Amino acid sequence: MDNERLEKGLKHLKDKNPENYDKLKENLQDIAPDLVRFVAEFAYGDIYTRPELDPKSREIATVAALTTLGNAPLQLESHIEGALNSGCTRQEVVEIIMQMAVYAGFPAAINGMNCAKEVFSRLDKK
Amino acid sequence: MDNERLEKGLKHLKDKNPENYDKLKENLQDIAPDLVRFVAEFAYGDIYTRPELDPKSREIATVAALTTLGNAPLQLESHIEGALNSGCTRQEVVEIIMQMAVYAGFPAAINGMNCAKEVFSRLDKK
Amino acid sequence: MDNERLEKGLKHLKDKNPENYDKLKENLQDIAPDLVRFVAEFAYGDIYTRPELDPKSREIATVAALTTLGNAPLQLESHIEGALNSGCTRQEVVEIIMQMAVYAGFPAAINGMNCAKEVFSRLDKK
Amino acid sequence: MDNERLEKGLKHLKDKNPENYDKLKENLQDIAPDLVRFVAEFAYGDIYTRPELDPKSREIATVAALTTLGNAPLQLESHIEGALNSGCTRQEVVEIIMQMAVYAGFPAAINGMNCAKEVFSRLDKK
Amino acid sequence: MDNERLEKGLKHLKDKNPENYDKLKENLQDIAPDLVRFVAEFAYGDIYTRPELDPKSREIATVAALTTLGNAPLQLESHIEGALNSGCTRQEVVEIIMQMAVYAGFPAAINGMNCAKEVFSRLDKK
Amino acid sequence: MDNERLEKGLKHLKDKNPENYDKLKENLQDIAPDLVRFVAEFAYGDIYTRPELDPKSREIATVAALTTLGNAPLQLESHIEGALNSGCTRQEVVEIIMQMAVYAGFPAAINGMNCAKEVFSRLDKK
Repeated sequence: MDNERLEKGLKHLKDKNPENYDKLKENLQDIAPDLVRFVAEFAYGDIYTRPELDPKSREIATVAALTTLGNAPLQLESHIEGALNSGCTRQEVVEIIMQMAVYAGFPAAINGMNCAKEVFSRLDKK
Repeated sequence: MDNERLEKGLKHLKDKNPENYDKLKENLQDIAPDLVRFVAEFAYGDIYTRPELDPKSREIATVAALTTLGNAPLQLESHIEGALNSGCTRQEVVEIIMQMAVYAGFPAAINGMNCAKEVFSRLDKK
Repeated sequence: MDNERLEKGLKHLKDKNPENYDKLKENLQDIAPDLVRFVAEFAYGDIYTRPELDPKSREIATVAALTTLGNAPLQLESHIEGALNSGCTRQEVVEIIMQMAVYAGFPAAINGMNCAKEVFSRLDKK
Repeated sequence: MDNERLEKGLKHLKDKNPENYDKLKENLQDIAPDLVRFVAEFAYGDIYTRPELDPKSREIATVAALTTLGNAPLQLESHIEGALNSGCTRQEVVEIIMQMAVYAGFPAAINGMNCAKEVFSRLDKK
Repeated sequence: MDNERLEKGLKHLKDKNPENYDKLKENLQDIAPDLVRFVAEFAYGDIYTRPELDPKSREIATVAALTTLGNAPLQLESHIEGALNSGCTRQEVVEIIMQMAVYAGFPAAINGMNCAKEVFSRLDKK
Repeated sequence: MDNERLEKGLKHLKDKNPENYDKLKENLQDIAPDLVRFVAEFAYGDIYTRPELDPKSREIATVAALTTLGNAPLQLESHIEGALNSGCTRQEVVEIIMQMAVYAGFPAAINGMNCAKEVFSRLDKK
């Protein structure tokens, strides 16, 4: 039974970024409930909760990956929040995204930075 | 004059990963000396030496980005070495690459892992 | 003369997905009429009408490709409709997109699923 | 316990493509045994064995995705074999890859076709 | 001191595309002023002002690259303007984008063409 | 009948880059003769021979696109030759590839430059 993986994943999400998983669930639960479950079970239950790498480093890696991909702004915004909730400062988030100019080009870095701006501004309004 | 940026970049490279820059220089100095210089000046002199993010976190971000891109194995191998030289353990490198399965897909993670295997095996033979 | 290819392509489009080609034409006929024509002649006249692969399998391949690309949501939505018009069930479309999590990562699958949700909801309102 | 997922995945792999999983295991079992396990558990145990889409259609989708990605030739070759083992003819595989010229460009289709050529030639020598 | 590079870059931008750099600055100056500066210093001061390639050819290359990337529509629109300001005709811009169907696929070409349409229409309203 | 398009395409190829098309044909004529034909008919017969953009500008766009894609080194090498045969100097080719560091990142530019080095060295040996 997979309950253990799901529970581990949901607990991690609740600690680090509950709103974003709730939004994913709200969006896709009707059409693809198993995809929603796989996110919690595999991405969070199997991967993020492994003790071999600390949560802050995991979020640094993910912000870098999503800035590089350049076509997943909602997920990047979600993980910018995850990075902040895992101990990154805003300045560190900005640095990671800026560094991506070297590997993925300036458009990727600029578009990623606009996501950071969006998240910071949303958090400031709370 | 840009000497200061170049010197800062070359010093960082000498500390973290001298062989790989030497190889780049050997390869491209004849055909594109300015591209070689821009790597040292911009990527290392301007970006990597900024104090706003520690070198280990920068290498985590870069290993994640290059695993995600999936078409730059030599640069990934070079930055796996850079990550090890900046304080990452081998296990942490393996974790970062494995996590990319979630964002860039399993083929990217598997191909990235083969780069890590190659680097570790090369280092063990030294 | 290319009339034959164009006619074959337009006939295929009329059968499988007339509205989407009309929208493309409306958008780009002024600025790039030949690009619009090449879509009908090459993509549909030359490729989709080949008897070596059935239309349903062709649309499965295209939905997979567009989910993987991740930066062409309008084309993905158009081919989700094409898939449904070629014999795929909604559940099959959902499965193809979900499977892309393995090859292109979860963000690609999630963003692709949002396109499917959009299409299904539009069709339900008709 | 995840044994059930692992067993389901391994059984599917044994039926459709045992050699390629063995090669993956041989390559990465030392360095990243959990990544090898996740391939069997998640990709095959969770996804490929779902009854909502037939195995042939799944392999069509995967060949399309890997041709589109363009940077995973070993995985593409492995899934060209998987497609043949799931009921695709060689001609159908060729058609799927050729169609990708429309979505991912001619270089992706040409490079994918070279993978098909490689696989067909390897099988002919067996 | 980098003033010289920055000045060269800003002068080039002022000649070819002042509004777009102003917009970038307005957007990101607060959150990432150094990224904004790097665009002027590195992209424009170091690269675009090199005499080894004429400005029109540089913009042709950039419009091709951004159409190919497919995930940076704002930057593509900005460089379509840059291309027009560097001596390309509208018809040449349309041709470059259309040609990308061959290398990056039809969706990239179609989405790029929509950016051209947007720019041309904006310019016609001025 | 498409003879006219095919003939136009083959004539262009014969003028600008006969060896590379011959190699493509040799490689894929058995397995996918229609893909080989589509390259000549569509890419060359329909696109490259259009008078709306000069051949040199077309090759600049293609070298930029293939450097950006980063996963088609053989096609990039072929079009570096095409660029030289269409009036680009070696220095101009080097500049186009270097400029891609800005849009696609340094790894893409470095890997593209290695292709240029390979082509130049091959031509010097002739």
